[in-house]
Amino acid sequence: MTPRLIALDWGTSSLRAFLLGADGTVLERRAERLGIMQTPPDGFPASFAQIAGAWRRRWPHLPAIAAGMIGSTQGWAQAPYRRNAAGAAEMAESLISVPSGDGGVLHIVPGLAMDTPRAEVMRGEETQIIGALTIDPGLARGRLLLPGTHSKWAVLADGRIAGFATFMTGELFAVLRGHSILGRLQGDLPPDESGFDAGVTTARDGDGLAALLFSARAQVLLGTLPAAASLPYLSGLLIGDEIRGALAAGHGAGRLALIGDAALCARYRRALSHFGITDVPAIEGAAEAGLWRIACLAGLVIPEPVQETMP
Amino acid sequence: MTPRLIALDWGTSSLRAFLLGADGTVLERRAERLGIMQTPPDGFPASFAQIAGAWRRRWPHLPAIAAGMIGSTQGWAQAPYRRNAAGAAEMAESLISVPSGDGGVLHIVPGLAMDTPRAEVMRGEETQIIGALTIDPGLARGRLLLPGTHSKWAVLADGRIAGFATFMTGELFAVLRGHSILGRLQGDLPPDESGFDAGVTTARDGDGLAALLFSARAQVLLGTLPAAASLPYLSGLLIGDEIRGALAAGHGAGRLALIGDAALCARYRRALSHFGITDVPAIEGAAEAGLWRIACLAGLVIPEPVQETMP
Repeated sequence: MTPRLIALDWGTSSLRAFLLGADGTVLERRAERLGIMQTPPDGFPASFAQIAGAWRRRWPHLPAIAAGMIGSTQGWAQAPYRRNAAGAAEMAESLISVPSGDGGVLHIVPGLAMDTPRAEVMRGEETQIIGALTIDPGLARGRLLLPGTHSKWAVLADGRIAGFATFMTGELFAVLRGHSILGRLQGDLPPDESGFDAGVTTARDGDGLAALLFSARAQVLLGTLPAAASLPYLSGLLIGDEIRGALAAGHGAGRLALIGDAALCARYRRALSHFGITDVPAIEGAAEAGLWRIACLAGLVIPEPVQETMP
Repeated sequence: MTPRLIALDWGTSSLRAFLLGADGTVLERRAERLGIMQTPPDGFPASFAQIAGAWRRRWPHLPAIAAGMIGSTQGWAQAPYRRNAAGAAEMAESLISVPSGDGGVLHIVPGLAMDTPRAEVMRGEETQIIGALTIDPGLARGRLLLPGTHSKWAVLADGRIAGFATFMTGELFAVLRGHSILGRLQGDLPPDESGFDAGVTTARDGDGLAALLFSARAQVLLGTLPAAASLPYLSGLLIGDEIRGALAAGHGAGRLALIGDAALCARYRRALSHFGITDVPAIEGAAEAGLWRIACLAGLVIPEPVQETMP
């Protein structure tokens, strides 16, 4: 199958590249630790060449598209946020392009911003959500949860992103583990994962994180939580409070699916089960599917096979 | 006036000492950066000598009492927690004593622990609360708020501590400012304090911190919050969410008073005003008053003036 598109999921800490054929079939995939934080401000053409140069040399007219933090002010070129409810068509009509240093261009998907009910921004997740909708059209009125450093909960309506909320769960866990009194409880002990469920149910039945965090320390001091369970408990508190908050904020209706790292999705499934939410599928391949969909709508993917340069 | 007691408020990062005369009148006060974190495990006798040695040499039989983290496992000697509702009498009957290295002893007030409705611990605050009650007996059925690294909200009943809750507000602010994406928004900009009130009211009307923290970043990116206001906004979010959480947890009834650093109390008063809570007095001298009260109940303070060593 001849390739039709180079698709890049270019985030803060990683760069994933896909060579896509007809219908968005993945022909090849590559990944490098070349996220925007690993790339100096003038280093984006070199990073692009490192991950996609061989493909471009072989198929010089192959279009290239990227989504993620690469379009932020810290990225290669700023792709201004699209405001408020958006679907694939709006993202496709708002692409920007930047000379890619090899005589061609790289198209960049804008981020998505919401002004109400609360200021929210995402970059990259909008493309994964669009991809998930092409993979599972039944999610058109559902919900998607993208756990991570900054977890996103998105509500979909008629196949568009009607609203979303961000929870700094992963970053909070990292800073509390690394820099707070809570992280020191665990020491070098191997984690006792029973603490995770205790943390989730405590957060589920609680009224917000602020009053609960200290309970990790208090319980260890009082002997009701093993020190070895303290970090899993903290993880459970944070994930549990995220779910509680998302459900309380009205992100509670419609089918729910996950997009993300398999181990993290498993952790969220375990937490969701304590809220009575089960059978939550994980959508694989969402980023590349979304990039394909947006590129098609933008007219970037030419219908006939691209010309191959003779070796 | 002849001295009757050496009283120490010995915390994590500071050591305050009071020479108290009849009725607990403060005759002299000293403070050193000799908190338990600045003192090596075998250094407590030296720290004690540094802050109180001159008093002990002049009045060798003067009793000495301390409260705070000095009684924790990281302190000089562990004073096990008193469990559940406690007043001054229970604390007085649970003192421990440790040889103070100068031929005498130092008495240490235990911390206070609660098992229900949630595991909670405090060390030092119980003594300040007992002191506040002697200063303002009208608080016997009121509430006390001790803002700080680990803010405490205590509910009083019949002059005893009936319950309390801990909010890691100060520590959360420090780790988020120092180590998260939120702290980087402010850069070197002088703080625009208008952000504080916006943070407080956002938290007041919200449903927990997890969904709100990211709004600091989103609003700066979208231009609805000046970067210079981002740290004050974060401070307002955290303090506002603490107050929201405390009120939601039923810490909402009865007169409220503050104990703590004047600038921090002013910040909390400003936040409390957004919840319609005004006229919140600050209690001064609570630690030394509490130490005096406990020492009296424990029979440590001898009624007659202590013998002075001839110089």
